[in-house]
Amino acid sequence: MELTLEEAKKVVAGAEAKAAEIGVPMNIAVVDVGGNSMASERMDKAWLGSINIAINKGFTAVAFNMTTEDLGKASQPEQSLFGIHASNDGRLIIFGGGIPLRKNGVLVGAIGVSGGAVPEDIEVAEAGVKDFK
Amino acid sequence: MELTLEEAKKVVAGAEAKAAEIGVPMNIAVVDVGGNSMASERMDKAWLGSINIAINKGFTAVAFNMTTEDLGKASQPEQSLFGIHASNDGRLIIFGGGIPLRKNGVLVGAIGVSGGAVPEDIEVAEAGVKDFK
Amino acid sequence: MELTLEEAKKVVAGAEAKAAEIGVPMNIAVVDVGGNSMASERMDKAWLGSINIAINKGFTAVAFNMTTEDLGKASQPEQSLFGIHASNDGRLIIFGGGIPLRKNGVLVGAIGVSGGAVPEDIEVAEAGVKDFK
Amino acid sequence: MELTLEEAKKVVAGAEAKAAEIGVPMNIAVVDVGGNSMASERMDKAWLGSINIAINKGFTAVAFNMTTEDLGKASQPEQSLFGIHASNDGRLIIFGGGIPLRKNGVLVGAIGVSGGAVPEDIEVAEAGVKDFK
Repeated sequence: MELTLEEAKKVVAGAEAKAAEIGVPMNIAVVDVGGNSMASERMDKAWLGSINIAINKGFTAVAFNMTTEDLGKASQPEQSLFGIHASNDGRLIIFGGGIPLRKNGVLVGAIGVSGGAVPEDIEVAEAGVKDFK
Repeated sequence: MELTLEEAKKVVAGAEAKAAEIGVPMNIAVVDVGGNSMASERMDKAWLGSINIAINKGFTAVAFNMTTEDLGKASQPEQSLFGIHASNDGRLIIFGGGIPLRKNGVLVGAIGVSGGAVPEDIEVAEAGVKDFK
Repeated sequence: MELTLEEAKKVVAGAEAKAAEIGVPMNIAVVDVGGNSMASERMDKAWLGSINIAINKGFTAVAFNMTTEDLGKASQPEQSLFGIHASNDGRLIIFGGGIPLRKNGVLVGAIGVSGGAVPEDIEVAEAGVKDFK
Repeated sequence: MELTLEEAKKVVAGAEAKAAEIGVPMNIAVVDVGGNSMASERMDKAWLGSINIAINKGFTAVAFNMTTEDLGKASQPEQSLFGIHASNDGRLIIFGGGIPLRKNGVLVGAIGVSGGAVPEDIEVAEAGVKDFK
């Protein structure tokens, strides 16, 4: 089971539609199961600093097969994984907006969204995933 | 004058259509005048190693306001810019496939294409630019 | 006193057997006294993000001649070494799963394990060390 | 079609046997189709500097679906891809010793070997591939 570019674009489009709806320009990326970028875009006026974060939220969600939000909970000070964000050459993002993509329960990739407040990033990422299912 | 995401996507789509026509799966990227990624995609079965190269061909074409092919000519051993490929944190690509995008002669961004033989990369990048003009 | 590849493989095999027993696919690595990788493996379906962490738990355990768990205790906010995880080019891991390997009390290398909850990582790493002694 | 750890270990073992036969200690690595490390080992007395090169030969062979030897031919001064070795964050190796692994013609990963003269690296890598087929 592999993710195709056509599927990846649909995920991006679903997220973009939600970002437009809530009026927050976003960086949106989809990575494959190897953590490699398949499709990414920056909406007009979206933050430059979020290009890297969107792709790396996707990478992180694939790398640990969980949302970046969940990884973040375990990575706070005094929690079990505190410090993990400095590993993997700085590619791990430990706040919400990265969500695994699965086919019949099998990990095939992930979406990463960055550009707004974290709850907005999550809402937009979820919209992309919803279209995938 | 700025490049919009809609314009960037048209450039990518024009390139993708040509890549499909010649039957070579490509990585295609468009960067803005700041050298930052706006849109990128990897066609199914395109080389993983070309994700980085496509974006950086775009970066390079913006960074020196010339095609990567032209920069490459000046960067061979014994030529005036030999060694430049190791600068800019390894982001400069010195072979064809990166082309500046201009509006009324003003630089607004660039396309970068990687995934085939260099003449194929150039052909596909030119197809993207053609649609832009 | 040096660690041989044969010994390193035994350590890895001991850890792998424990990981299989508890049903958690792991990344397992052994590094030498110079902190350099000797043997590493990723069990089927183990997290991609743990490849880097397993090797670097080994590096960290050698680098400070203590378990990563112990280093982690001193590296929490308000503790004496807080911030150390950003040093060494991001190679230090400050939670459990990295354990020094010693011969007659002399440091010869370390094992690093990553792929489950931290107590699972520690359990698997200890199984590898046990086989070494 | 995926590469399993058991298969990866067989490839490594086949290469190690050849390295022992010719008396040259090697670093040997196998990466999956996403370019991520699956198994690696450093034989006793093998060069430290080859740990990185072995893994990155594997990465390179997957990234362009060709041997590093073939990529190297196109990457010499005045050839079409000159300068490519500075891309991909310095992970591309453009001399022999990296060979794709295929199942029924489909790319599933690659082996990378480093530690001797390049013809020795190639010989050892080919021995690993032979056992895979």
